[in-house]
Order: sequence, then structure tokens, then C-alpha cells
Amino acid sequence: MPNYILGFDGGGTSCRAAVASADGRILGRGKSGAANILTDPDTALVNIVDAARAAYTDAGIDPAHIASATAVLGLAGNNVGDAVHYVEARLPFAKAEIVSDVLIALEGALPAGDGAVASLGTGTVYVVRRNETVSYIGGWGFAVGDLGSGARLGQALLQESILTFDGIHPSSPLTEAVMAEFDDDPRAVVDFARKARPGDLGRYAPRLFAFADKGDAVAIALLTAATTSIDETLDVVVKRGGKPICLLGGLAGLYRPWIAARHQSLFVGPLADALTGSVALAARQAAAVSEMTA
Amino acid sequence: MPNYILGFDGGGTSCRAAVASADGRILGRGKSGAANILTDPDTALVNIVDAARAAYTDAGIDPAHIASATAVLGLAGNNVGDAVHYVEARLPFAKAEIVSDVLIALEGALPAGDGAVASLGTGTVYVVRRNETVSYIGGWGFAVGDLGSGARLGQALLQESILTFDGIHPSSPLTEAVMAEFDDDPRAVVDFARKARPGDLGRYAPRLFAFADKGDAVAIALLTAATTSIDETLDVVVKRGGKPICLLGGLAGLYRPWIAARHQSLFVGPLADALTGSVALAARQAAAVSEMTA
Repeated sequence: MPNYILGFDGGGTSCRAAVASADGRILGRGKSGAANILTDPDTALVNIVDAARAAYTDAGIDPAHIASATAVLGLAGNNVGDAVHYVEARLPFAKAEIVSDVLIALEGALPAGDGAVASLGTGTVYVVRRNETVSYIGGWGFAVGDLGSGARLGQALLQESILTFDGIHPSSPLTEAVMAEFDDDPRAVVDFARKARPGDLGRYAPRLFAFADKGDAVAIALLTAATTSIDETLDVVVKRGGKPICLLGGLAGLYRPWIAARHQSLFVGPLADALTGSVALAARQAAAVSEMTA
Repeated sequence: MPNYILGFDGGGTSCRAAVASADGRILGRGKSGAANILTDPDTALVNIVDAARAAYTDAGIDPAHIASATAVLGLAGNNVGDAVHYVEARLPFAKAEIVSDVLIALEGALPAGDGAVASLGTGTVYVVRRNETVSYIGGWGFAVGDLGSGARLGQALLQESILTFDGIHPSSPLTEAVMAEFDDDPRAVVDFARKARPGDLGRYAPRLFAFADKGDAVAIALLTAATTSIDETLDVVVKRGGKPICLLGGLAGLYRPWIAARHQSLFVGPLADALTGSVALAARQAAAVSEMTA
């Protein structure tokens, strides 16, 4: 029987898989729950296998054959070594590699040549391909990175709201709306922020854009600062030869008009999605293996 | 036998107690381990009692008499309600009140009249007394507050060091020293920062001041931003009538020359320490009680 290949696009919300022929034609797709290898690797393992079996079933192939597949998994949290080793060692495929979720996004969006992806969502990360060589910028997470991310925007908004409560900075309709949501009690804001995960903070981000459109001074100031950090990073992307640039992630469309004029002509739309990118990477891996064994 | 009073100054490192006569004359002192009611209330309870018993022993009074004492405890973390109720309900004193650590600092530093304390350490918090009324500014903790604090300075330094690694911002001797400490591996920085407690981050703060003195551009930029937030807060302190101002906390001396000229003439040294302030508060409480029962 033929050896199939598997591509995965997994994150904190869901895990999507696609099974393809060795040359990369997608035959079937499957979906399951969260595959966050950092926060819950064992659940991620279960959902990865479930998505693979669902894709095989969708393609009309016996799911028992997943054991002979070559797989590439694009997963968030891949830059923390321990989690990757733990999950890679337990995957039931013939060959499996966990790569960055932004790498499969790049492979899907810009399958060939030089280019870059700027992923602007709950976190921020940039990947550049120049002369077949891939390099990353950012993506260091909420604690000391991810500038311009939804999580950092949300944190900045809560911080600014508390500063207005203390009379240190002038309030705005946006900060007044935030404080009202917490019954004008900064202790409630602090309590929420202390327990919040990046995704919880990131849910405030769309509201900043909405209020900025209406002229809210605080929203405009916070977004201007955040966009400055994105523009500075895009300067590095361009310096590394990462052109054209695909803006991806949940905040890409909202940020687009805020980004500096010097970058606007570099933007292109994605050719395909990240799952397609993971399949393309898996097909390349499988081809490399069969060349070696030929 | 006379009813004694107890004052406490407790925090993440140690708990100090003083026993005094009802009129506030200190008779003995004791010291024990950490009294962080937020992170470990049960250990805090043990150390509070140990410090009280040590103070009684130091004064030559039978420690069994702590049960009849009126106590005021100035403890960090007092603005999180649950922890205060938990600990207050379990204290073995006749009467006990937990107050802010910065309130006892104010009582010690400026025992009477209008005035303010700016506490600049791992966290930042400001307290104003005007016409006998006390109000607080800041002190909201690391997640969305404590601007200018040692913890926020340390976080900003690690973040800036990673930005220089990615080529987004220019490096400096300080960021080079930080990256070298982490073997030039931003993943190691991220790993440290994710697990770090505010105190762990705050340990970087003195180095910022030292490098700034040598002209380090990054250190100067980060300290200028941090000092701006302190100056803005001091403007609110002054607007509320909080003059004169005592700068206290581990970073007070380092920050002093950075603070704006408009505030420099408002600064005075503290009359006494926070433990003395807690005793003064306890003496006032005891006097109020005996007036009521007279």
C-alpha cells in the first residue's frame, strides 16, 4: 500500500489534520480539540491522533494506517524544547516532526521564493524565508515579548484604566467602559489580570481598534505604541530580505491600516492556509526520505 | 496586669514585632521569618506569633500574655481581601487589625500632619495623609501596575535585551551583559521571565542605575520612562495635598536624583521606621478602645 503523509495545524482551540498522497494531494481532512503542547501535552497527543484518524476516515482509508505516515505538525509553543521532545517521542506515526505554527503558515501563504509572514494575534511572531533559509523574529511569549500582540494590548488597556482610576492619566470612553465592566473597582481589574491567560487579555484587543476608530484618545495612543513596535519589527523583516509579506493572525486585518506607509506596498494575500503548508512540508520530507532510500 | 500593644512590620522576607506599653513606649522587639499573607498565609500566621512571643521575651514579659494584646499589623498584600480575612480571623490577639505596609511606613516616617510616602521597591505604592484622611495611589501589583518598580524595571530590561537579540533595537553594554548571562539564548531569558516572581525581576533594578551612571543608552531610556511614571504619580500625590514626601523602599536612594526638579524640594527623611509606625497605630487603637469602655 502507498505511504500517506499527514499535515497538522494545531493550537489552543483546535487541531486540524489533512492526509495526502506522497506527492502532496490532499485526500481527506479531520478536526479535533485543542493541541497546546505547552499547557497540556497529553490532551494534545490524544487530539492529534483523533484528528489524524478523522482525516483518514474522511479519505476512505483505514485509520490503522496512520502508523506508516510521515507527519509534519505545526504547533504553537514549539520553541519550548521539553514539550516538543515529550510529544514527538509519543506520536504514533512512522516519522514525525513538530515545527513552528508560523512556519506552516509561511509554507501555505508563500510556498516558494523569498517572503515573510507576520502573525499578529494573541501573540506576535515573524518568519522570514530568504534564499531557502528560514529565520524567526519575535514570538517570545507574553512575559517579555509579543509586543503588539492582543495579549499585550489587553494588558496595556487594563493598566491604563487603573492609571485613570488613580487620576494619573486622563480617562477616555474606552477606559471608562473597562472600569464600568469591573464595577469601578481596580481590585477587580487586578484580580482578573493576575489570573488571566494571554487569550483572556487578548479579547480586549478588538475593542481598542473599535474605540480608536471613534477617536478615543487612549485607544489611539496604545495602538500607536503597539504599531510602532510592529513597524520596527517589519523593518528587520525587510532588512533580512523577507519580501513580500503576508499579515496573518486574528488582528492582521485590524492592524493593516495602522501600519506605516513604507510597508503597505509589501503586503500580499496568502496563497493557501497553514494546514496546506504543513502538508507541503510533509510531502517534501517524504520525498527526501524516498530519495535517500532509492 | 497591664494590657500591652503589639506592632508588626511583615513582608516577604521577615516579620518584625514590637511590644509596647499602652501609651506606645516600646519595651521589646522580636523577629521571625516571612509573613506574606498572599502567598503563604499559614506560614505568615506562625511567623507573626513567633515574632510576638520573641518581642515579649525580649521585654521580660511572659509570652502567654500576647492573647490580651491589641495589635496592628502592617503587611504587604493587605489589599487582597480574602487573605486579610483569613489571617485576621486566626490571630491569637485580643484585637488585631491588618493594615497596609505603606500605612505603617507613613505613620513611622511622618507621624503627624499632612504628608505622603512614596514606596519605591520591588513594587510601588503611594500613600497620602491630608487633614487626617489617608488615601492610596498605585500599589496594584506587577500584572497591571507598579510602574517604576524594581520588578517592572527588570521585566523591561529583559524585554529590551530580547529586542536587541532580534536586531529590533540597538544593543548596549547593559543588554549585552544580560544576554551573556543567559548564554546569548533568548529562550533562557524567556524561561527565566516566565517563572520569575516580582522579586526575581527586581534584582536587575540596581544594575540599571549603575549602567545608567556610566552612560548606557538602554539603561537611561528605561529609567527615564520609569521615572516619568513616578513623577506623574507624585504630581497626583501633591495635588491631593501630600506634602512633604518621604521616599522609602529599596530603590528610593537610587531614584532620588532621577526624579523631576519640581518634586525635589518636597522630600524629607523619615522620622522613624515602619515598625514604630505600627506601634503608634496600635497605641491609638488601644486608646480609642479604652475611651469607649471608660
